[in-house]
Formats: sequence, C-alpha cells, structure tokens
Amino acid sequence: MIWVSGWRLAAAVARAGGLGVLGAGSMRAEVLRHHIRQLRSVWSGPFAVNMPLLYKHMSDCMDVIIQEGVPIVISSAGSPAVVAKPLSQAGIIHVHVVAAVRQALKCQNLGLSAVVCEGYEAGGHNAPHGTTSFCLIPQIVDAVEIPVIAAGGIADGRGMAAAMALGAQGVQVGTRFAASQESSAHPKYKAAVIGAGDRDTVVAFRSLVPVRLIKNAFSQKVLDAEEQGLDTEELKALLGHGRGRRAIFEGDLETGEIEAGQIAGMIRDLPLAGDIVRRFTQEYAEARSRLP
Amino acid sequence: MIWVSGWRLAAAVARAGGLGVLGAGSMRAEVLRHHIRQLRSVWSGPFAVNMPLLYKHMSDCMDVIIQEGVPIVISSAGSPAVVAKPLSQAGIIHVHVVAAVRQALKCQNLGLSAVVCEGYEAGGHNAPHGTTSFCLIPQIVDAVEIPVIAAGGIADGRGMAAAMALGAQGVQVGTRFAASQESSAHPKYKAAVIGAGDRDTVVAFRSLVPVRLIKNAFSQKVLDAEEQGLDTEELKALLGHGRGRRAIFEGDLETGEIEAGQIAGMIRDLPLAGDIVRRFTQEYAEARSRLP
Repeated sequence: MIWVSGWRLAAAVARAGGLGVLGAGSMRAEVLRHHIRQLRSVWSGPFAVNMPLLYKHMSDCMDVIIQEGVPIVISSAGSPAVVAKPLSQAGIIHVHVVAAVRQALKCQNLGLSAVVCEGYEAGGHNAPHGTTSFCLIPQIVDAVEIPVIAAGGIADGRGMAAAMALGAQGVQVGTRFAASQESSAHPKYKAAVIGAGDRDTVVAFRSLVPVRLIKNAFSQKVLDAEEQGLDTEELKALLGHGRGRRAIFEGDLETGEIEAGQIAGMIRDLPLAGDIVRRFTQEYAEARSRLP
Repeated sequence: MIWVSGWRLAAAVARAGGLGVLGAGSMRAEVLRHHIRQLRSVWSGPFAVNMPLLYKHMSDCMDVIIQEGVPIVISSAGSPAVVAKPLSQAGIIHVHVVAAVRQALKCQNLGLSAVVCEGYEAGGHNAPHGTTSFCLIPQIVDAVEIPVIAAGGIADGRGMAAAMALGAQGVQVGTRFAASQESSAHPKYKAAVIGAGDRDTVVAFRSLVPVRLIKNAFSQKVLDAEEQGLDTEELKALLGHGRGRRAIFEGDLETGEIEAGQIAGMIRDLPLAGDIVRRFTQEYAEARSRLP
C-alpha cells in the first residue's frame, strides 16, 4: 500500500473498527515518524506499520518504529529473520507476509505472532509461484498453529467470509482501501482502479520482482520486452526508478506502475474508508446467513 | 478430467449424492456411448457429460450425447454458441465453463441454464487472463442471473463453503476426484497429485492454449522454450500429440503433461470417490459453523 496508506486512511479504518495500517514502503524515516505521530494525535488504540524489508530506507524506518513504540509491525518482501529479534526485544507484535507454506512455517519457528497469507491475486509485489488465495489459505492454516490473516482478492464481506471459511482468522484488505476517500493515492489512480474490469491486471517483471499492475502502456511494454527475452539487467533498466510513485501518487497512468490487486475489477465506487469497514461487517453477516 | 472420469467415477460420485460427470474429451464417440450405457446400467438418476468444444471428435460425440439423451452437458474450451441450439432442441440442460464476466453474460444471453466459473487455479486447460476464483466468482455472480457453479481450487468442504460465501450455488471438483480409487488415471499420475506441494503446478503454453500442469521435466522444457521466445509453430511441435494421455493414463511422468489443479498441494490421500463426497458435506458443515 505504498503511496496510499498514510495516517488519514489508517485513522479512518481504525475508528470504524478495523486495524489501521501505515504503509512505510514509500516513506523516509522522518515522514514515517510524522505519520505515526499524526495518527496517534487522533487515535489512541492499536495500529500497525507495514514494512517491506527490501526497501532502501528500511533500517532507518525500523529505528523510528522502535523509538516510537509502534504496537504491531507487518513485515513483507524479504526474510523476517532480519527484523524478528529487534522487534521482539522491543515488545512489538511481529507479523510477516508469506506466499508459501514453507515461509509460514519459518515465521512460526521464528516466534512470530501471525502470518499474512498473500495469494497470487494480490496487488503490487507478488510471489513468483502464483499460488492463489483459494489454494494457499487452507494449506497454510493446516501447516501452522499461529493465526493466519488472508490477503489477496478480498474487497467485500463475501470475500472475508470466504477467507474465514477456508480457515483464516482475519483479512488484510489493500486495493479496496486504495480506492477510498482517505487514500493518499492520486485521483487518476483511484479512477483506474474503479474503471478496471475482471481481466485488467497483469503480473509483470516475473523474472525480477513480480508485481501486479493494472494494464497500461508501460505494462504492455514490459510484457513485450519479457516475451522478447530481455535479461535481468535490461529489465532493470526498463523499470527504472519511482514507477509506482509516478502512477499511484502523481497520476501518470501511461508510464507509471498502476499497482493494484486483481479484485480491482469488482471495485466501482470511492467511499469513505469507514463506510468500507461497515459494509464488510454487513456483507459478511449476509454471506454467512445465505450459506445453505 | 480427460482420462480420469469414466463411468465408474461418475457412478460413485452420483451414488454418494453428487452429480457424476463423464469426461468426453478423451473418448471417441463409441467409447463415450459405452460409458453412458455402463453408467446407466448402475445409476438411474441424472448425470452430465463434459464436452471440450475444441476436441477433434466433438461433433461425433455430440451426436452420441443427443442420441443417448444425456440429461446435462457441460461444454468447455470453445464457444457455447456452436452447440447451444442442438442441445436446446434435444431438451438437454446446457452449462458452459467460463473464465470471464463477458463469457458468462454471453452464456446467459444464449439461454444456457448455468455457468461453471473456472478460476486460474484450475487444472488442465486454463484461460489466458489468470483471473482467480476469489476474484472471478463474485464478479460473475454479480453479472448474471443464472446459477454460478465455482471451479478451481476446491478440494474439500472448506473450499465449497468459501465458494458459496462468494455467491456460487454449487461447485465443480476435478483434481480431488482425479486422485480417487475410481478415477481411471494411472497410479503414477495419482501419486504425482498426492505428492505435489503448494508451489508445484505451473501454467505452460500461455501463448498457445494455456494448461496447468504439475511441474516435471516436460513442463520445464516448455517454460525454457517459452523464455527463449519460441514461436507458435515451434511450440506446437514441442507439444506434439497425446501428452495428456501419456502422463494421466499411461503414467509417464517425465515426458507427459501431468494436468492437475493448483489445489493438488492439499491432496494427500486416495479415498473412494463416495467418501470424498461425504467428507465435503461434513467439512462444509464444520466450516460454516466455525464462522464467527
């Protein structure tokens, strides 16, 4: 949720009864500190920070997280072993995002509190094996004893009920909140999510770091390059820097990476984040009661 | 379910309370007639025939289906318009397998009775857009008024409950029954399904007709060829003929296509098909009652 999830979105989600998450992957350390403090100025309960471990400012952000006493960290995109010890020593609840059974077992062995189980349909950084939420959730639930939080493909209460029927104890929702009033994404990015259909995302850079995007001129250029067999260095050059920021924060839908989950196809409006949380609760109850 | 689903499997599923399906995609017309008659000799209720429309003996098989008065046809892999009229005129219930909202709407407009909504995690022939069950089911449910049957990623009652929470009115289950006592697949194929882990299937021939397989020497050869940019004709030559039969029916796990769904990772035993149906019922009830 880089460029999307700042203190305003986290606060709105928290106030409606969800766990608000700050996306640190697009913040320098002092920006993250600002967001933590702003969030705390309006919300006194628990919240989380998502920390992609491959992020170049990760180490500085981790210092801020520990200094500020963030209650929960959700690490992703890297080995949780790197940060497990300092987080544990600081008394911070540590959850890690996984996309395979083996990774979930590793998290459990490291003493983590829970795992986020992320299916192939999720937006942004994506695992190379393509295991979907339907297949991944029950296999991870069967393999570990710590709680499993499902992510990928969930944008309403029906999806939450489905994930919990598969054994998840909670859900992590990204793209649905990216298209909310309080999301810090550019209006053009939000319009792209709302406009996408059921077949409008694609996974690019499979040989580098796979990423799920809404199809645009840039993603087509990458797929063409991949079909022509460009090597890793050539693909890195094609990727360049700041492609996510360009699309998500600056609204350049031609040359930026429009990172979003496949469930964008189901998203058709731009509500307040709190209304999204309330709808989830209502839709979940309806989905459960409809089950024969 | 080519080479897997003959009259013995269909009868066992039917007797346990499911809808038994004959997989016509690996049968010549007279073989299909034999299976229909054998099934009828032990089962007097409804059953279905799955008919892949790209199959070279499709037209002859369709004649047999109509002559024998098969009650339900599930067509797949092609345009349902080709067979909708003759099936309707013969009073046969027609269901078609779709992987996109647009295809589901087309089926509804053609007057079909239901659609099977097949996610990217499904085994064998696969749609090129990669929309997963979690994302596809609710979007198709929202788009059409005819019943939606979910397929792809479902191998136990938890999966059935999840699909129905997303709005499906039933499920179609393949790989779980491929690894059953009554499946006509080779014991080595069944062992490959049982031995697969959560990351052990792959989609090959994306530019031709995408197909999901358990990874083996052949699938690696295809992926390497695709990475090197082989064109369609070269890929067709590499595919050759009878690859599915070789793996599934003859047990050649090196040079055959081990067609299977991604949910193979969850399958660990080789029960009677009737026991699979009974487990589904039990697990479904448990999954529903566990929902908070």
